[in-house]
Amino acid sequence: MSQNNAFRALDRQECLRLLAKVPVGRVVYTRQALPAVLPVNFSLDMDASVLLRTSAGSDLVRAVDGVVVAFEADEIHAATESGWSVVVTGRAQVITDPVEHERLSRTGPRSWMPVRDAVFIRIEAEMVTGREITGTPGQG
Amino acid sequence: MSQNNAFRALDRQECLRLLAKVPVGRVVYTRQALPAVLPVNFSLDMDASVLLRTSAGSDLVRAVDGVVVAFEADEIHAATESGWSVVVTGRAQVITDPVEHERLSRTGPRSWMPVRDAVFIRIEAEMVTGREITGTPGQG
Repeated sequence: MSQNNAFRALDRQECLRLLAKVPVGRVVYTRQALPAVLPVNFSLDMDASVLLRTSAGSDLVRAVDGVVVAFEADEIHAATESGWSVVVTGRAQVITDPVEHERLSRTGPRSWMPVRDAVFIRIEAEMVTGREITGTPGQG
Repeated sequence: MSQNNAFRALDRQECLRLLAKVPVGRVVYTRQALPAVLPVNFSLDMDASVLLRTSAGSDLVRAVDGVVVAFEADEIHAATESGWSVVVTGRAQVITDPVEHERLSRTGPRSWMPVRDAVFIRIEAEMVTGREITGTPGQG
């Protein structure tokens, strides 16, 4: 899709503004040497990092703590073949600082699921890329 | 999320039935040693493999041809905190057989974007997993 007129690259600020509009994204990581992806609800922290909440003993924590992951969110309208997609790439880390944990317990994302021994995972927004799909019906 | 009552695992047939309902999913792969994810429209072939259409010279082709990738689709309703997610994991391969290419030019996915030197990518449905999120408002 390299010479595609129908894409527009989004700058970091546009990406973060769009990310803040949606409640759910997808963590992309490696599990047992295979590509893996998991939809999760999230929120953005003040420094634009992505925050997730899950169980301390979850597979997700085991797989992503300390490694670089991607986090994707999008809104795509099939009828008009238009929309946007944003990807945050950066190191994921379980938050171990009790003060930070306490702050996020008040202000961070809650989980949609029952969670035992809740922990927060922060994905640093080291690289933020996105694109708008402007839609060119009739082509392709 | 290991002891989560709010998830139900879906069997292969349920997964494929749900996949067939949506036009867009996300290819999950590795690009320059980093996790990468790209939303694309797709269709399912008769053997349940996932079919994409893109440019022969695209970054996606370079990154995924001959390697194991994941392909995810979902429908998640934030208001009710419910929905489903399906992941197909298998080898991706650019289709080089001219007869097969011709068949897919008639029956396969078209691209939403202008495509030069169109090729089809097949992702074998070697592993198909999915889950339904039944929603437990008020918990978490």
